[in-house]
Amino acid sequence: MLSRKIRCKSHGQDSSYFLGWQEYEKNPFDPIDNPSGIIQMGLAENQLSFDHMESWIARNQESHSFMQGGGRSLFRELALFQDYRGLPEFKSELAKYMSKIRQNKVTFDPNKLVLTAGATSANETLMFCLAELGGAFLIPTPYYPGFDRDLKWRTDVEIVPINCSSSNNFRITLPAVEQAYQQAQKLHLNVKGLLITNPSNPLGTSLTLGELRLLITFAIDKNIHIVSDEIYSGTVFEKPRFRSILEALDHENNSSVADQVHVVSSLSKDLGLPGFRIGMIYSNNESLISAATKMSSFGLISSQSQFLLSKILADGKFIKKYVLENRRRLKKRQEMLISGLEKTGIKCLESNAGLFCWVDMRHLLASDTFEAEMELWEKMLREYGLNVSPGSSFHCSEPGWFRVCFANMAKETLDLSVQRIRSMVDSKLENVI
Amino acid sequence: MLSRKIRCKSHGQDSSYFLGWQEYEKNPFDPIDNPSGIIQMGLAENQLSFDHMESWIARNQESHSFMQGGGRSLFRELALFQDYRGLPEFKSELAKYMSKIRQNKVTFDPNKLVLTAGATSANETLMFCLAELGGAFLIPTPYYPGFDRDLKWRTDVEIVPINCSSSNNFRITLPAVEQAYQQAQKLHLNVKGLLITNPSNPLGTSLTLGELRLLITFAIDKNIHIVSDEIYSGTVFEKPRFRSILEALDHENNSSVADQVHVVSSLSKDLGLPGFRIGMIYSNNESLISAATKMSSFGLISSQSQFLLSKILADGKFIKKYVLENRRRLKKRQEMLISGLEKTGIKCLESNAGLFCWVDMRHLLASDTFEAEMELWEKMLREYGLNVSPGSSFHCSEPGWFRVCFANMAKETLDLSVQRIRSMVDSKLENVI
Repeated sequence: MLSRKIRCKSHGQDSSYFLGWQEYEKNPFDPIDNPSGIIQMGLAENQLSFDHMESWIARNQESHSFMQGGGRSLFRELALFQDYRGLPEFKSELAKYMSKIRQNKVTFDPNKLVLTAGATSANETLMFCLAELGGAFLIPTPYYPGFDRDLKWRTDVEIVPINCSSSNNFRITLPAVEQAYQQAQKLHLNVKGLLITNPSNPLGTSLTLGELRLLITFAIDKNIHIVSDEIYSGTVFEKPRFRSILEALDHENNSSVADQVHVVSSLSKDLGLPGFRIGMIYSNNESLISAATKMSSFGLISSQSQFLLSKILADGKFIKKYVLENRRRLKKRQEMLISGLEKTGIKCLESNAGLFCWVDMRHLLASDTFEAEMELWEKMLREYGLNVSPGSSFHCSEPGWFRVCFANMAKETLDLSVQRIRSMVDSKLENVI
Repeated sequence: MLSRKIRCKSHGQDSSYFLGWQEYEKNPFDPIDNPSGIIQMGLAENQLSFDHMESWIARNQESHSFMQGGGRSLFRELALFQDYRGLPEFKSELAKYMSKIRQNKVTFDPNKLVLTAGATSANETLMFCLAELGGAFLIPTPYYPGFDRDLKWRTDVEIVPINCSSSNNFRITLPAVEQAYQQAQKLHLNVKGLLITNPSNPLGTSLTLGELRLLITFAIDKNIHIVSDEIYSGTVFEKPRFRSILEALDHENNSSVADQVHVVSSLSKDLGLPGFRIGMIYSNNESLISAATKMSSFGLISSQSQFLLSKILADGKFIKKYVLENRRRLKKRQEMLISGLEKTGIKCLESNAGLFCWVDMRHLLASDTFEAEMELWEKMLREYGLNVSPGSSFHCSEPGWFRVCFANMAKETLDLSVQRIRSMVDSKLENVI
């Protein structure tokens, strides 16, 4: 009686990525109430600079109150607001913020922004606009497990992986892109574009200008689109600095392809505000903006939250301070996790961004297989109370890599999680001896 | 380069329904600044009881402030909230409210509710869950113009109209339903269900128990779904009282079909809060609820607005008073429009709900054609400054009917709009003489 979409599993939510969350929910760690519970290291959430955001909110109560100065109430205006193009003042602040995060190397026109209820919706909307059944996007691996749901489930679009490997630190190369393109052709798929996540989730690295140029040249050559998911753009805490695909485009003076490049962004990761569902699409393609704006009816952002965020973003001094402090804290956290793991003989991919490390546990696998990766994952989850995310759920082509999040917990909890990893490694060594 | 969906017009937003809005936006009426501007009578928005809502907000500032008693801040909790099942306290209050609006004839289980960013998203989600390319839903005419976008555009599902006519006041009959079913079969479409809007937009009437029974029997007979869009359930201001499809289902003791009946609702019309994007799906079908919950990732409601609405709905005394007062005011408004139009010789369909009248202007058409209907519509819009919605945009099968909204303006503006209609009718009569 139900549609094929319901019956099929292409939403991907039965993968270990989401299963680990379910296990965590049954037995969540709490330092006082449940100190032996599972530590959630599978959630890419940024809580490190929340104190700054909270004190701004406490100081600026009119930002979230309907009651404004002079007894004026905004309630009517916001409650009745239903222009699907969004609150003009919010879009204007958002455009400025997007530019700031990109060190003013790119300017954003609010009229080319489409608001969506989170990046999830932005990515799906782009797929609906750019492709259909029989169409495909090439995506470098490892990539975010949610893409299987976001990009494929309702749109019927296929993902063809661009297989990146540890041999060159998972960098994107032309041969890998070419190979994916040929693979798609073998599968009789019409390649409509490339989708990149920059900075990468799960790698925590930002793309080099070389990689961006390679992708732009490829897109021109094949006459396809580039979707650049830049939801982690505000988390780049170390050199090399972040370069948006839009900056690379300007740099190359490739105006011919400008209509084929589309950016997704959000405030969920940069500012740690996933609850307010603020996502967006940015594009120079007028037809796309027009269609995506119509589609945004399926996932509009509450006017109340648009208003709140317009006020937060408008405080340029605060945003500047927040972004700098956030970068500093992310860097400190990442270093803490890296050095903790190093002491147990575990290395991480060198990274400069994100809320996670891409951790190499290949030497801890019983064999060089994904079955062994799942065994190790299960062991960490059930015996050592750590929910990390296995590389296989990110479609990584090599077994033994795990994404470990570090920004969604207290420092003490991160310390404990490193201790738990250490005891796992020690016990493994003992077994070997 | 773009998908077929972008290039096709099945989003329907070029129809006169939406074009009239664009004209209004260029020259909006304002009693002081633009007294000759266009009066927006094409917007089904409820502003009549806004003063009650506003004073509640003014009295209950903690409902929309992150700062709670004892210096506790909710900001962190709400900003980080990302459980796509929604805030439990909000769902619990929503379930109670849904029951109240249905005079406690039906009880709602919060676990069977899926939250969506507005009813637009709820309706599309149901289509994705219940049908696919080659599938169709039967919908009684006249129906909401947005359905062409909401139900068809991205899902590839077709709508087959059940043609209702003025001969029996647009009531749904078995022969009309049968005929639509046969029409779908002729078109080689797989009929997956019936979709009703109850109370009807644009008719302003609620379905009778007889109609609901007929539809349930038909759904059992053909083994298809029923989607009941009940977003206007709180606007029933006169007898007969509102009966949800769920009440009819209980009444008939048709548990066999319970899994095939799904309700859509929202707070945009009942409480006049479209800006907060609160929509929902209710169903007894567990597989559907599970899939729709996953799909709700594409249009989640801001946690900030979930919290606000949980507080408003929790004040049972206020809600009761609001609903009663709102009904009283809607009734008064509807009577005002009806009696104003009657004096110019224009009749409305007898109605008991909604934010609009279904107005019979057949005698004002130059000929019994949809071209003549569009001529009259253009005349009202451009010469008399009235944006009403022509029946053709609601897929009405008879030319000469218009939907005229009465709850989105001041009493004085409604008076003026009736005067404008009168001068149009007078000038028509003069031309004839």
